[in-house]
Amino acid sequence: MTALALLDYASVAVFALTGALAASRAQLDLVGFAFIASLTAVGGGTLRDVLLNRDAVFWIAQPAYIGVTASAALLVFFTAHLLESRYRALLWLDSLALAVAVPAGVSLALSLNQPAPIVLIMGIITGTFGGLMRDVVCNEVPLVLKQGELYVTAAFAGSAAALIAQALDHSALVALTACALTTWALRAGSLAFGWRLPVYKSRPPRQ
Amino acid sequence: MTALALLDYASVAVFALTGALAASRAQLDLVGFAFIASLTAVGGGTLRDVLLNRDAVFWIAQPAYIGVTASAALLVFFTAHLLESRYRALLWLDSLALAVAVPAGVSLALSLNQPAPIVLIMGIITGTFGGLMRDVVCNEVPLVLKQGELYVTAAFAGSAAALIAQALDHSALVALTACALTTWALRAGSLAFGWRLPVYKSRPPRQ
Amino acid sequence: MTALALLDYASVAVFALTGALAASRAQLDLVGFAFIASLTAVGGGTLRDVLLNRDAVFWIAQPAYIGVTASAALLVFFTAHLLESRYRALLWLDSLALAVAVPAGVSLALSLNQPAPIVLIMGIITGTFGGLMRDVVCNEVPLVLKQGELYVTAAFAGSAAALIAQALDHSALVALTACALTTWALRAGSLAFGWRLPVYKSRPPRQ
Repeated sequence: MTALALLDYASVAVFALTGALAASRAQLDLVGFAFIASLTAVGGGTLRDVLLNRDAVFWIAQPAYIGVTASAALLVFFTAHLLESRYRALLWLDSLALAVAVPAGVSLALSLNQPAPIVLIMGIITGTFGGLMRDVVCNEVPLVLKQGELYVTAAFAGSAAALIAQALDHSALVALTACALTTWALRAGSLAFGWRLPVYKSRPPRQ
Repeated sequence: MTALALLDYASVAVFALTGALAASRAQLDLVGFAFIASLTAVGGGTLRDVLLNRDAVFWIAQPAYIGVTASAALLVFFTAHLLESRYRALLWLDSLALAVAVPAGVSLALSLNQPAPIVLIMGIITGTFGGLMRDVVCNEVPLVLKQGELYVTAAFAGSAAALIAQALDHSALVALTACALTTWALRAGSLAFGWRLPVYKSRPPRQ
Repeated sequence: MTALALLDYASVAVFALTGALAASRAQLDLVGFAFIASLTAVGGGTLRDVLLNRDAVFWIAQPAYIGVTASAALLVFFTAHLLESRYRALLWLDSLALAVAVPAGVSLALSLNQPAPIVLIMGIITGTFGGLMRDVVCNEVPLVLKQGELYVTAAFAGSAAALIAQALDHSALVALTACALTTWALRAGSLAFGWRLPVYKSRPPRQ
């Protein structure tokens, strides 16, 4: 199994769990769980594949991905009540999913010899759009909009780390690991310790 | 006219009516009616065609579809005030549209020799995404999220019925009819008699 | 630089400003500004390119577009506090962006020899979907839904003006200018003078 397929499977599995948790907050039935889990899990990678004009979207080429999302939905449907806070679990799982989906996007773009800005963007898209679709469909406040939290910024930094590692002639494995760790460290730091960048605040017009 | 084209035209026409009804609830002008009607009517099939990498999206290959959506918008704009409840009409028309759009998705996926899980998913996507786009854009609660109603579940069961009929060596016509009837029976039963699957309910953690 | 590339750059730049203004209303950080600015700026043209099955989406073929959206985000992040009303600025910039994005869509569809209805639709899609994505993601009321304002209608009239000019054998330059002016005149007239088409109003059922 290639590194890309491994990253894709890992991000699909973890994003599917977050989607199923969102479905549990919306009190859907089991098929609804599988629907939201699948949308979340493959949304970002599907957009990446369509934009890059791949011959086939990854989960159509390998329908086993859908088995993964359905299993995640089943698991959450029967065990989510054991969690103390489903929203907190969703946030932390989402941070893990982000940290594997960003390198999955970067890895594919690199393998297609895309220029650096496109690699950067594919990392961000693959990382963020599945969760964005989940939040828009489930009427949750999109995580990308949570004021002052590092989210898109974490994805951006992770993609940039991969590009820097590659420019320094490190192996693909090093580049993807740097990408995953940077993304996760920033997102987790934002969740746990409130790390943030300055946000825009409207001020009165200058005198 | 092939069975696929017939199903596509029927689902486009009926989904367009539901989109125009949603536009009437948002009090748009005639062009706004046509916009939302078209988005709803072709949204699911467009996503299906893009995902399956068809040479051309169905309504670009045959722009007559757009005439259908515009006519539906016109019809609703001038007659919706005759309805007693526009939301009730929207719900029931949507159930019909679902019941023809699901076999339209299944039919195309079968004709491209896709494996069973992809056929299943294309039925669900074609059936549900047009209405989902309508609801997200019009700020209505997405029907796929209505707690306890059979919606994605009806689409899933319809797609599954087609696959079973096909596995039992029935003709395409039988398979697509089984698909449409199963989808509509479950959705209509849910609307009329409150049929439902058990939904997820958060419970206190076990002792 | 071709007329199409010029229109694409102009609409990307101006839509990016509106996206960054929406990000300022959501109080995001700088990367969030760039994210929403890019989504808004390339959303409509990306959908157009995917639907028309172009070899590569325009901003993947020329990543310089992303430099434009990032610069716009930077500009707004550091200067938006100088504006008296950021929402008013957003509305007027959006009207300009609409007036260049519609001819950008029309121009591409004409260059691919698409039939008139598809040209019309590509103008509307390119003009409206970037702003629609911005509004859905940022939880603003979509401008396409603002009751009684000319928005989709302006895009529709602009596309139609281009088709009429072309049918009368005018040059592409005349057709695209007519398109831009018609779109902007109607949208600006709606913003400044309250121009509108009759909207649907529910009335009691006839006796």
